[in-house]
Amino acid sequence: MEYISSPKNDKIKQAKKLTTHKYQKEAQLYLLEGWHLVQEAVNSGEQPKAIYATNKFLEMRELKPFYNKITEISEDVASHLSDTKSPQGIFAIMPRQLATLDAPLHGQYLLLDGIQDPGNVGTLVRTADAAGIKTVVFGHQTADPFGAKVTRAMQGSQFHLNIVQEKLTTVVKQLKQADIPVYGTELNPQAVPYRSVEAAPQFGLIVGNEGNGMQQILLDQTTANLYIPIKGKAESLNVAIAAAVVMFHLVGD
Amino acid sequence: MEYISSPKNDKIKQAKKLTTHKYQKEAQLYLLEGWHLVQEAVNSGEQPKAIYATNKFLEMRELKPFYNKITEISEDVASHLSDTKSPQGIFAIMPRQLATLDAPLHGQYLLLDGIQDPGNVGTLVRTADAAGIKTVVFGHQTADPFGAKVTRAMQGSQFHLNIVQEKLTTVVKQLKQADIPVYGTELNPQAVPYRSVEAAPQFGLIVGNEGNGMQQILLDQTTANLYIPIKGKAESLNVAIAAAVVMFHLVGD
Repeated sequence: MEYISSPKNDKIKQAKKLTTHKYQKEAQLYLLEGWHLVQEAVNSGEQPKAIYATNKFLEMRELKPFYNKITEISEDVASHLSDTKSPQGIFAIMPRQLATLDAPLHGQYLLLDGIQDPGNVGTLVRTADAAGIKTVVFGHQTADPFGAKVTRAMQGSQFHLNIVQEKLTTVVKQLKQADIPVYGTELNPQAVPYRSVEAAPQFGLIVGNEGNGMQQILLDQTTANLYIPIKGKAESLNVAIAAAVVMFHLVGD
Repeated sequence: MEYISSPKNDKIKQAKKLTTHKYQKEAQLYLLEGWHLVQEAVNSGEQPKAIYATNKFLEMRELKPFYNKITEISEDVASHLSDTKSPQGIFAIMPRQLATLDAPLHGQYLLLDGIQDPGNVGTLVRTADAAGIKTVVFGHQTADPFGAKVTRAMQGSQFHLNIVQEKLTTVVKQLKQADIPVYGTELNPQAVPYRSVEAAPQFGLIVGNEGNGMQQILLDQTTANLYIPIKGKAESLNVAIAAAVVMFHLVGD
């Protein structure tokens, strides 16, 4: 097994580049960090292109099938590759696996319209996964699904459901063609309390930008626009919190 | 109005100290940062002990009543005091306002048992506020309520509801003495789906540490222990997300 001790090694330089969106997109690969996430990847049947790990991970049972893809790295190299202050010391280069939407659409969809904060984006995907939603569509103004902070918050949910990048106006059109109700989440005079809509096996739920909400062009096309009645004095809810409450309601028992 | 341009000024040194828990507790004061939060404070009738602001805030209408408490600061000083990369340039020294529990207890309570992440803690308080819960009890292992990251995530909700620091075993005992049901949130064999419990005007809801969950001693005393059925393949939910889903269910319409 190869051992790399210098952050200046060419392979490490290449791996480090895969933390930037530009190179991720060119290479169609991204760098995944942390033992839990690498385990999630391989347990979900994903094929890492390469694994960089410090000594303590080399004998892990889950990594046996990928033995010929592992390169041992020093703690120095791990610190260099890491997005965190206390790196665990394991990284995998993974394919940027995006799904496509097959018309006619069916089932439950979460649509992210301009969500900027990577923690929010990742938490939204993880929550959709837990709620049993099969597809999350990233609009073009939403943070990239494969950034380090997003994958950390996703907790491996990118391996469980379909991640799609698509123009949201197109997706809303396809949902409506398939007779699937589309719900917005914007506090405007037309909004109705989320509990007034019943749980259903098919829906599209759109959540909007943290500060500015949804695009008007999408709002104009929704079947209904939902809000969460605020009982206390808080002005609003965090977008991932609000989406969670509505998702678990719409998905039902 | 006094103008301070040097981070080495004694008043600024004192203000900076109020970002640490040790000095916060000694002085029973904390440093609040950002225009939105300072607005929330004064709009809620709170009395800042001092306000440090860069030039652009000096003429703000909301600050008029506190004119004699304002000190103008330079951008340099603002950077020095700030917990963020792009400081807005306004800070208030606020009393560490903690409430006490008056027996007999009544109403709805959120109990935080060893929540470590300041973002989670703040989001939990903000969400409790939005759900109409009037009291959040911080157990002794939970992050301090007045850290900069916590107050940023609370979004001013500390001015809307009661923040209590108390031993949770004591609070659970008082809840039970008042015949108020106490719900745990731990995925164990005794747990029941959260929807099997009905919304009610009185309850205590305990949420536990991100990694280790609730203390066993508290679990032993709960009326029921709730879980959120996971429909997809996610292993778990973020603690603030899970608490939000259960809180909005328990609070009801």
